[in-house]
Amino acid sequence: MRNLVLFALLFAACAECAAQDISKIDRNFESRKIGNVELRFYDAKDAPFKVEGLPWRKEGGGYSRLPDGVTAENASRGVVGLCGHASGAAIRFATDSKSIAVRYVTNGNGIMGHMARSGSSGFDLYLRDENGRYSFVKNFHQRNVSEMGKVPYEELGANFSDSKMREFALFLPRYCGVKSVAIGVLQGAEIKPPAPHKVAKPIVFYGSSITQGGCASRPATVYTGKLCRELDAEEINLGFSGNAKGEDILAEKIGDIDMSIFVYDYDYNAPNARHLENTHERFFKIFRKKRPDTPVIMMTRCSMPSADRVAAIRRTYENAVKAGDKNVYFIDCSKIFEPYGGIAECTVDFCHPTDLGFHAMYEAVLPVARKILEDK
Amino acid sequence: MRNLVLFALLFAACAECAAQDISKIDRNFESRKIGNVELRFYDAKDAPFKVEGLPWRKEGGGYSRLPDGVTAENASRGVVGLCGHASGAAIRFATDSKSIAVRYVTNGNGIMGHMARSGSSGFDLYLRDENGRYSFVKNFHQRNVSEMGKVPYEELGANFSDSKMREFALFLPRYCGVKSVAIGVLQGAEIKPPAPHKVAKPIVFYGSSITQGGCASRPATVYTGKLCRELDAEEINLGFSGNAKGEDILAEKIGDIDMSIFVYDYDYNAPNARHLENTHERFFKIFRKKRPDTPVIMMTRCSMPSADRVAAIRRTYENAVKAGDKNVYFIDCSKIFEPYGGIAECTVDFCHPTDLGFHAMYEAVLPVARKILEDK
Repeated sequence: MRNLVLFALLFAACAECAAQDISKIDRNFESRKIGNVELRFYDAKDAPFKVEGLPWRKEGGGYSRLPDGVTAENASRGVVGLCGHASGAAIRFATDSKSIAVRYVTNGNGIMGHMARSGSSGFDLYLRDENGRYSFVKNFHQRNVSEMGKVPYEELGANFSDSKMREFALFLPRYCGVKSVAIGVLQGAEIKPPAPHKVAKPIVFYGSSITQGGCASRPATVYTGKLCRELDAEEINLGFSGNAKGEDILAEKIGDIDMSIFVYDYDYNAPNARHLENTHERFFKIFRKKRPDTPVIMMTRCSMPSADRVAAIRRTYENAVKAGDKNVYFIDCSKIFEPYGGIAECTVDFCHPTDLGFHAMYEAVLPVARKILEDK
Repeated sequence: MRNLVLFALLFAACAECAAQDISKIDRNFESRKIGNVELRFYDAKDAPFKVEGLPWRKEGGGYSRLPDGVTAENASRGVVGLCGHASGAAIRFATDSKSIAVRYVTNGNGIMGHMARSGSSGFDLYLRDENGRYSFVKNFHQRNVSEMGKVPYEELGANFSDSKMREFALFLPRYCGVKSVAIGVLQGAEIKPPAPHKVAKPIVFYGSSITQGGCASRPATVYTGKLCRELDAEEINLGFSGNAKGEDILAEKIGDIDMSIFVYDYDYNAPNARHLENTHERFFKIFRKKRPDTPVIMMTRCSMPSADRVAAIRRTYENAVKAGDKNVYFIDCSKIFEPYGGIAECTVDFCHPTDLGFHAMYEAVLPVARKILEDK
């Protein structure tokens, strides 16, 4: 079926093409051996693979997190530069293949001193069972740093003893772009679209580097990812490292997404409390105009909090409640690291959470998100 | 005082030297500017600095974790190769300097895909107050990877507004050797030895890569480091990544250390349960002969546990109890990750803990260690 669609597309461009061996045209379709396993690779950007987390992506398109219309002028060069990072994006599919492999070319290498490449430029493969429960299969990270962004990296992800239909989610890197992703399966194996999530509509996150995922050990262990796996929801991550300033254009574009929950979390990148006072409620109101009933969780920063920042965010919440808004939730995160030893134990640099800090954030947001979904 | 000792040493070798400017002889003594701060650097391997965690180190010597007599023949090439990694080592000192800087040359770069360099080849500076409580000041990690091991890296660690005497601990990298470490203070600042720890004798750990510290975000967030900071004890880390096989020679050498607690934790590196059966009790008995009363905490692995491995370790413990040993403690770690989401959430690769996994390990060992110390 999938091959048919692709052949049809090629056929539209050139009638002769249909007779050609597609593996000669697109290397993704080659049969290749990894170890003793002969695999056939399929480009993950096309159906039946489902690319999630990129609401403005066009079928078959690249892995950008933002739509046209967000520019250096109305947002910032930072936001435009970071939208290529694949944070929150995932490839979902089902297959009966006994072996699964992944081949990818990143766009950048994600090298940072305080974040492991397994998180910044690595990929996480998970199994998803029929009840929407996820189990970790493997993290992929390219060994040869000098080849990153240039030479495709491929690795076997799993081998099963039987060929029953299984569903997978491949979570893409948090601090790195992705040029291409291909999934390798055994010759003749079937590939099908994944089942829908338990939570019908995505959870959208807007925030800073912490939201984007710095400095988690793996793409899936960021609080956003932990939450969406636990609830079984699509994650849309609009975390822009150092560049989430609450610009109007972001509020407008985010308001275009049909979502189950909006997690509104950019305290970290507001230069000061005054900036929050000037932008936080304004952003919310722009969003609210487009999404009058969407539940909104407003979070404060977890590390280096300040009372006036908390107050600015709380004001948005309290004014909304006063105005009769029944879909706003406020989480003061100032003290959530304390049961885990405080900021020094939960961050790598007083700012970016380690996996321990992200666990604390997840524990803070999960009950609020769960209640929202149960009350619906 | 410190300069006097060094001048005296130089004088012993060459009478003319004493008249020379030492900063011309040893670059560590240069005055150097970092930003606008003019600092004078002192080599941390000499008094009044206290180098901890390296019981066999000779005054002024290098940063090796093992004594002469442990060889590729009676241990392994792996153990001999890894003893140069500075895991668990710390530089302690007190100073009234308003500014503190660190300069170091690593031996290797600690680059791994699944561990951040802030942990593998980074340094953690902590303040220690008069009650033995530690607070995180800064993590240092060399930005230019190609310069690592070749070019000294220096960075300002802290600036204080007053010049009261403060005590510091600088924790060395977990997966990297250290050629030299120098501490920079303001011209004329006093440097003194640190106060003793609350726990008089060190806590010694023997184990695998997990014990050595893979894959913590920072040197101080490994469970061994968290435990020793919380209790205020010197850490002696004899974790040998992939190479802790329970060799007799290690038991003998470890038995030479006068310690408060021995944490015995090499399940991960035993190739199988049979290997544990053949070595675990034997190692303990060799150690026990030298240290008849030292409290010993025996731990099983936390990830990918197996019943027969747990049984082999438990047997050592139960036989000791039966024989009247009142100083043995057993922690089955098979399930300690469960409250934190299990092995998949607590490790980067089903094996090496993230900071979340290390927190779980710390929580498991802390009450046992605390009870041992209180009962004494």
